[in-house]
Amino acid sequence: MNFTGAHILSIEQFDRDDTEKLFRTADRMEPYAQRRRVTRVLEGAILGNMFFEPSTRTRISFGSAFNLLGGEVRESVGAESSSLVKGESLRDTARVLSGYSDLICMRHPQAGSVAEFASASRVPVINGGDGSNEHPSQALLDLYTIEKELQARGRPIDGLRIAMIGDLRYGRTVHSLITLLALYRNLKVVLVSPPELKMPEKYVEALRTAGHQVLVTENLEESISSVDIVYSTRIQEERFQDRSQADLYRGRFRLNQAIYTRHCEPNTVIMHPLPRDSRAEANELDADLDSNPNLAIFRQTDNGLIVRMALFALILDVDQLVDQYSGDVRWFNPRARVL
Amino acid sequence: MNFTGAHILSIEQFDRDDTEKLFRTADRMEPYAQRRRVTRVLEGAILGNMFFEPSTRTRISFGSAFNLLGGEVRESVGAESSSLVKGESLRDTARVLSGYSDLICMRHPQAGSVAEFASASRVPVINGGDGSNEHPSQALLDLYTIEKELQARGRPIDGLRIAMIGDLRYGRTVHSLITLLALYRNLKVVLVSPPELKMPEKYVEALRTAGHQVLVTENLEESISSVDIVYSTRIQEERFQDRSQADLYRGRFRLNQAIYTRHCEPNTVIMHPLPRDSRAEANELDADLDSNPNLAIFRQTDNGLIVRMALFALILDVDQLVDQYSGDVRWFNPRARVL
Amino acid sequence: MNFTGAHILSIEQFDRDDTEKLFRTADRMEPYAQRRRVTRVLEGAILGNMFFEPSTRTRISFGSAFNLLGGEVRESVGAESSSLVKGESLRDTARVLSGYSDLICMRHPQAGSVAEFASASRVPVINGGDGSNEHPSQALLDLYTIEKELQARGRPIDGLRIAMIGDLRYGRTVHSLITLLALYRNLKVVLVSPPELKMPEKYVEALRTAGHQVLVTENLEESISSVDIVYSTRIQEERFQDRSQADLYRGRFRLNQAIYTRHCEPNTVIMHPLPRDSRAEANELDADLDSNPNLAIFRQTDNGLIVRMALFALILDVDQLVDQYSGDVRWFNPRARVL
Repeated sequence: MNFTGAHILSIEQFDRDDTEKLFRTADRMEPYAQRRRVTRVLEGAILGNMFFEPSTRTRISFGSAFNLLGGEVRESVGAESSSLVKGESLRDTARVLSGYSDLICMRHPQAGSVAEFASASRVPVINGGDGSNEHPSQALLDLYTIEKELQARGRPIDGLRIAMIGDLRYGRTVHSLITLLALYRNLKVVLVSPPELKMPEKYVEALRTAGHQVLVTENLEESISSVDIVYSTRIQEERFQDRSQADLYRGRFRLNQAIYTRHCEPNTVIMHPLPRDSRAEANELDADLDSNPNLAIFRQTDNGLIVRMALFALILDVDQLVDQYSGDVRWFNPRARVL
Repeated sequence: MNFTGAHILSIEQFDRDDTEKLFRTADRMEPYAQRRRVTRVLEGAILGNMFFEPSTRTRISFGSAFNLLGGEVRESVGAESSSLVKGESLRDTARVLSGYSDLICMRHPQAGSVAEFASASRVPVINGGDGSNEHPSQALLDLYTIEKELQARGRPIDGLRIAMIGDLRYGRTVHSLITLLALYRNLKVVLVSPPELKMPEKYVEALRTAGHQVLVTENLEESISSVDIVYSTRIQEERFQDRSQADLYRGRFRLNQAIYTRHCEPNTVIMHPLPRDSRAEANELDADLDSNPNLAIFRQTDNGLIVRMALFALILDVDQLVDQYSGDVRWFNPRARVL
Repeated sequence: MNFTGAHILSIEQFDRDDTEKLFRTADRMEPYAQRRRVTRVLEGAILGNMFFEPSTRTRISFGSAFNLLGGEVRESVGAESSSLVKGESLRDTARVLSGYSDLICMRHPQAGSVAEFASASRVPVINGGDGSNEHPSQALLDLYTIEKELQARGRPIDGLRIAMIGDLRYGRTVHSLITLLALYRNLKVVLVSPPELKMPEKYVEALRTAGHQVLVTENLEESISSVDIVYSTRIQEERFQDRSQADLYRGRFRLNQAIYTRHCEPNTVIMHPLPRDSRAEANELDADLDSNPNLAIFRQTDNGLIVRMALFALILDVDQLVDQYSGDVRWFNPRARVL
């Protein structure tokens, strides 16, 4: 893919060379994300951060990533989309809004809406989530995290053993991640869910066709016992018509330190597409895992910032200029205290 | 008018010299709006973008225009105006908020509210729409568009023939535009609406008093047949107490490519104060006009950015400094791809 | 206190040396707040302005203060906090959001929430109000205003005579202010409220223990007759379970120019933690006081900007660099017109 000026709408656009290029660019963004350096390369550029459905963390992650490159952010959040209510087409909205910025990140509750918007936009558009359809930067930050966690353990993605747990039927995140993982070699993928929430067959088929080993099971303990990564997902209540049905599955695929110690190999990585439900009756990942250094869930969100910076830098073709416009951080860097 | 430090509350403040000065400044903003150049002239300045009523596009247009000059934007949107609920006067609100920025753009649902706010503000205030009353930057961008479209056809505004169509009674936009047009010479203005929604008599009188020719009609086809510009407006349902009445007028003043080809002179310009209703039963301007190069509706919104930049530059007295603090665009300019 | 990297959660963190250090830093921020100079010292830094409960003026004051130091602002407002709804803990939210910025200002409806958030945050957190608990920057700007107003009259805070009027039971503002005032010497504090809304005993005791004179009364006229400062507060209706009870107290502790002239010493300062209720039936401070030069209520909000700049500069350890990265203001400064 030629990143310059490209719309990023779907994970299907990426081949292995593309993820490689993105991740090596991401590596170079890390000093800026951690405030060891500042760059002003996008000074004067404007991001239109158009969230027609609210999402605090994704919205702020995109906005901060653009700020970290020196650019400005104009935003729209949720309920305000009055013009759409007045019957304006997404294409008209795109023609108007794309005149106000250099790049647009967009979230919208309707599947396919961002692609439709992009088709009329005069600037590149990044899909920040279009309903049940796609949220490519989430899948990319997950894959980048997998790569970094494995790297720290001296291993590549090829040959990875991963267990995916929870709601695999409605989880947009795991579908996209599997599509990306299929680009690699010799994976072992264990899919753990109640039968009603199991992974759609097309994803399983795609993995098998690409030569990967796939196990489908309902048994949590067994499935996490010989993998490198446990990827846990929440049961999204709002996907159920009947909310009481959701309660049936609550806690059934719960992971805590005791289970981890008993069943997992040492240094098994734990991931999760936040938010995590921390209410007593509903833990997917118990709080007692928080002191486990293999819990990578907050490294995931930190990597999200880095991957989004890399996307911006590549799309706007400044990835080779970032260092040239950089300087020292003048202010107290709290990260120095913690890391 | 002395623009420096002025409140822009009403179109009535403008004479022909003022629009001339504004538009020549706007011309000089175009390279920055199209990202052929960047300027940092307002680096360190703050715009207070206070929208006590939501309006995504106007709000973002103002904010982006300020960013394009190098300034920062602080915003408020809609329902949040809790202090007003607690009984605070607009004058108190103005005293407080005007301490936080160098200039304020304000939208508020109540007619006259922005003028009241401005009377207590310590910084210049631009009216971004106060209910049914005024929205001066919209009228100015419309007039600027008319000038540019005519210019491309080798003609000045003097002598213009224009048809205004749709809801001319409640349409704040057409009222303001007519007030500005009256400053010019020898116009022919055709007013097309159902009798219940016709242009208030005072605007018709003002045009005639200023020596312009005015035709009032209900016949769309006839009215668009010998004009330079067709200015179509939407029937704003929310103006009607009885919504079913609005349905009566839907589609009755609809324009599409077939009607355009049959009735309009070649190169007749089509304008519209967006949003346009694109639902099947309600088109004011059909989507089949989108490939007609004379459809100027998106050039209007692009001009809005430019006119707002010019207002900021003149009010803050930096119009002569914009180029001095300018530089090259370092990133991919998507406009180069399309234009 | 060592300001560098500190969380500012409670007024209890401050001793007299701390307020002194903060206020002398604030003095040096004034030229920037009044746009006589600009500084870019925080260029590249990001403030996370997280308002989980709406508050236009506090939010924009924090945001503008950060912009005035050259930094960027990412924001969240109110209802959008969807992740919290999904059962995410405040500690998880903090871990995620603190990766996106260099410093966080946070408002949240629940007492203690900001401290809990701060305990997991990787960057410094300023409490912008956590329910009925604390709002330290408001108390600090009040104290700074008292110091400046007295200074203009040639007097220090030691020996101050102050009357506090209105709802002293539920008013977070007066509680915090009293805690700060107790750090000084030989104060006379007059507490004026209906018995049902009187100051909690612990604050009265703290003042007396620190050697100050405290008078508790229901008589407005008498209480304001020999003080330097009258600090009036609104009766916050939302604190009452029974709204009709609120009406009983409305207007009973009202101050207007006639009462001021009849009872107050010349140059008695009038303060109020805005917003002020300006409805006819409910004035706490009548509008006829607006031309009284001793009405300091808008100087309070202006001081808020300055005190918040000082907090940012100290926490991020750039207070000694602010002038080094400064320059002239290029644009029209409206403050020059009014002041």
